[in-house]
Amino acid sequence: MNANNDRFGKFRALHHADRPLFLPNAWDHASAAALAARGFSAIGTTSLGVAAAAGKPDAAGATREDTVRLARGLTRLPALISVDIEGGFSDHPDRVVELAVELAEAGVVGVNIEDGRPDGTLTARDRQCALITAIKDAVPGLFVNARTDVYWLRDGERPPPGAEDDAHPRGAGPASVRPAGVGPGGPSSGSVAVDRVLGAAMARARAYQDAGADGLFVPGVDDEHAIATLAEGLDAPLNILLTPGGPSFHRLADLGVRRVSCGSLLFRAAVHNAVELAWALAHEEVTVTGLPSYAEAQALAAAFDA
Amino acid sequence: MNANNDRFGKFRALHHADRPLFLPNAWDHASAAALAARGFSAIGTTSLGVAAAAGKPDAAGATREDTVRLARGLTRLPALISVDIEGGFSDHPDRVVELAVELAEAGVVGVNIEDGRPDGTLTARDRQCALITAIKDAVPGLFVNARTDVYWLRDGERPPPGAEDDAHPRGAGPASVRPAGVGPGGPSSGSVAVDRVLGAAMARARAYQDAGADGLFVPGVDDEHAIATLAEGLDAPLNILLTPGGPSFHRLADLGVRRVSCGSLLFRAAVHNAVELAWALAHEEVTVTGLPSYAEAQALAAAFDA
Repeated sequence: MNANNDRFGKFRALHHADRPLFLPNAWDHASAAALAARGFSAIGTTSLGVAAAAGKPDAAGATREDTVRLARGLTRLPALISVDIEGGFSDHPDRVVELAVELAEAGVVGVNIEDGRPDGTLTARDRQCALITAIKDAVPGLFVNARTDVYWLRDGERPPPGAEDDAHPRGAGPASVRPAGVGPGGPSSGSVAVDRVLGAAMARARAYQDAGADGLFVPGVDDEHAIATLAEGLDAPLNILLTPGGPSFHRLADLGVRRVSCGSLLFRAAVHNAVELAWALAHEEVTVTGLPSYAEAQALAAAFDA
Repeated sequence: MNANNDRFGKFRALHHADRPLFLPNAWDHASAAALAARGFSAIGTTSLGVAAAAGKPDAAGATREDTVRLARGLTRLPALISVDIEGGFSDHPDRVVELAVELAEAGVVGVNIEDGRPDGTLTARDRQCALITAIKDAVPGLFVNARTDVYWLRDGERPPPGAEDDAHPRGAGPASVRPAGVGPGGPSSGSVAVDRVLGAAMARARAYQDAGADGLFVPGVDDEHAIATLAEGLDAPLNILLTPGGPSFHRLADLGVRRVSCGSLLFRAAVHNAVELAWALAHEEVTVTGLPSYAEAQALAAAFDA
């Protein structure tokens, strides 16, 4: 476990460096290998991407096997790997702890565990706290990033239509990047409803922190006041999901966020842009430039031979 | 087999319509579901993409299981599915025929079978012809698209560095589309070496046609004279791989091509663009617009419930 302890320590340190940890999320071996080759030293997985790639629904506990197979592969890359295990793929805490042990023994440095359940409700707080404590007791080095889905589930849905989405109507054509901070802002802060959800998220996050969580992940919030309040009110590193139209990585850093992850964003961009490219190639007089060659794509697989 | 015969007939007819068949290639369930949702009625697979997604090398016969699992899933989509089976994943013709039967019984309408071998040589012509005939004898309805790798393997490599690539030096940043026909053209036609390779490709393609192949696939050629010569010299539909910087779909149609496929192009674009997006989000003051929502991405998996 010496090599593993070393990896655990390195991953933990990335949450306390000058710059927050930017964690891109992979959905298969190729995307992870390409992210590692581009220089990302820590890589997460996206449960939506892993599930959709396998033709299965996300957050339904259906992808334990796919997730473990991918995680085992990814630990052969020269990168630190944190794995999204949804709610643990089981209602039995012992089974979730077993999974965490299995992943840590395979070389994984962290897990994301969420309190949103497949039926769109939240796991009881005490139960989730007990689960977090049980995982930490079994694998003290593993970075347990406890996610609360309070923002996503406030309306009883899991993520509601448009969650992670931006406010812009989407037409056909590839996704594009634009300067951050331009265009419609996030929801206004300060309303009673916003404060109620923020309070609920803070209460959950603090409880998970007290239960031993190494980091707290609050997806679905893009209000800067709420993010700054969460960052200030928590001792453990706060993880925020990068959302289209929401605050940029640099802005989140200024707000006190210690880890910024992409969730399913890269996966959605990959599939969407590929399909729009196919459509353009079939219907417009265009060609494509700037792609990696066949040999470069083949080299992605060679990264797993190490 | 009635539903299957109907599908076989529909796929065959797409090679003889007013417009050539544009076949985009998927590498996992999500990419295929998204292509079907975008309106593509026939979808191929890319062996490079399937292999790289699983962290395995392409064209090494290592992905029979991954390929079959994916094919079984994809036949649940509202699209006709043709599967890239590399060289058949076995040196034993009986095993390759078994695979073709298994895929056809699962609802697959076509296969691509190539004469390039993992060691970078070409399968003996008579041997490949016998294999094609054996598959057709076992599953007469299955569209056997016989690929000859003469262009890729002429230098004893399989695909050489830069195959499928364009002539432009590639920097960082996302791939982009540009108007076709602008920029450096393909290799000049008419040289002795070009004619020698064209002659070898024509000889292979004609032999495969005589052996019963329903279509002929010659990747690696982007010279317009060579493409037109192949189209004119063959009775069965000619399939050409769309290459960056090469002739556009519409230009290939004018040259007599009946099927245009994307090979690994969409897969390479997907991964490359996602990684460049991650890099931009981490290092530049940008945000992303125009992405499908979480709910839309989740819906990709629902397509497999039908």
